[in-house]
Amino acid sequence: MGSEKGVVLLDFWVSPFGQRVRIALAEKGVEYEYSEQSLAEKSPLLLKSNPVHKKIPVLIHDGKPICESLVIVQYIDEVWADKKAPILPKDPYARAQARFWADFIDKKIYECGTRLWKLKGEAQEEAKKEFIDILKLLESELGDKNFFGGDSFGFVDIALVPFTAWFYSYETCANFSVEKEAPKLVAWGKRCTERESVAKSLHDPRKVYEFVCFLKKRFGIE
Amino acid sequence: MGSEKGVVLLDFWVSPFGQRVRIALAEKGVEYEYSEQSLAEKSPLLLKSNPVHKKIPVLIHDGKPICESLVIVQYIDEVWADKKAPILPKDPYARAQARFWADFIDKKIYECGTRLWKLKGEAQEEAKKEFIDILKLLESELGDKNFFGGDSFGFVDIALVPFTAWFYSYETCANFSVEKEAPKLVAWGKRCTERESVAKSLHDPRKVYEFVCFLKKRFGIE
Repeated sequence: MGSEKGVVLLDFWVSPFGQRVRIALAEKGVEYEYSEQSLAEKSPLLLKSNPVHKKIPVLIHDGKPICESLVIVQYIDEVWADKKAPILPKDPYARAQARFWADFIDKKIYECGTRLWKLKGEAQEEAKKEFIDILKLLESELGDKNFFGGDSFGFVDIALVPFTAWFYSYETCANFSVEKEAPKLVAWGKRCTERESVAKSLHDPRKVYEFVCFLKKRFGIE
Repeated sequence: MGSEKGVVLLDFWVSPFGQRVRIALAEKGVEYEYSEQSLAEKSPLLLKSNPVHKKIPVLIHDGKPICESLVIVQYIDEVWADKKAPILPKDPYARAQARFWADFIDKKIYECGTRLWKLKGEAQEEAKKEFIDILKLLESELGDKNFFGGDSFGFVDIALVPFTAWFYSYETCANFSVEKEAPKLVAWGKRCTERESVAKSLHDPRKVYEFVCFLKKRFGIE
């Protein structure tokens, strides 16, 4: 248990990036202290722990901070390598594929998803078209597999599944149905949320939508 | 030699992302076939190998494509793990730090560097200020170490060093001196180019500048 001593997660409840870390820690059965952060007024601990990006999530392990969600998830996989199932596969080619798709999700989903609720009219329509293309690409990568890596839940699943709790907000703001566009992806999301690690890390999509409405108000979007 | 059979690199001579892969392959002593790609007219092989991003570099190993430069460099490190020095360190925390800084370079340097030669006036001044901040941050992370990881050349060095061949272009277009702003970083760059792997992968900064002038003409920038 020595290596588990002093695990602290600086996070914000609705963050899909923070949720990735929570899922990874839960998958490995690592006990940790959860520290909810204010995004409006950043704490001295957050600023000291992530002076470059000043963003959550930050995992502090034995006093040393690790930043950027996908970097943290890989760190967790490497430090608690002796615990339960690995997050990344063993085979180098499968690992490269997992890293490629997690990076794709990082580059596309959040940015395009944000445009879905922030923008209106033609710009929103354009974002919606792009978002549907992203979903279809991910769905074709998933294919008929249970999880992105095959039979076991892993890196790409952890990278993507937190965003499924945002789908309801995206759909409501931009008037479309993820299920209609990518039914296999929705089925995959349900399969993921049957896992305790995911179920306890994500929030009710309606709570996420309330948060999106709060953000819209703050940004002066009707 | 079996695992080296069929290593092909789809690349474009001046690409800092492709150069990362060339350096990693050279560090590991992997023989490969170099395939120069046209960016104006993308080859069927490139489109088939990287249907998602349609970009170089792509490493094709035994017929299977790997895309995204940092993913490729990690793949090379894992596949040719028995060869020479490792690219990523062994310690999980040091690995996380290396991944964090490589990701930082990916997110900042190219995008901000492109604004240095593409923009004019106030927008260029803003990019210059940002770029100098990025350089200073990287310099402070380097500190008094020989390489970013310590005494041995590794992941962050590979991620960053190709951009040093672009510094002359950035300086000439935006009128500033990298050496004046970040002398230790320039000294580090020189230390890196003493390695054969780096020397044979990078190009003369004046050749890079000619290419930047060609791009400026193509984009109608005076």
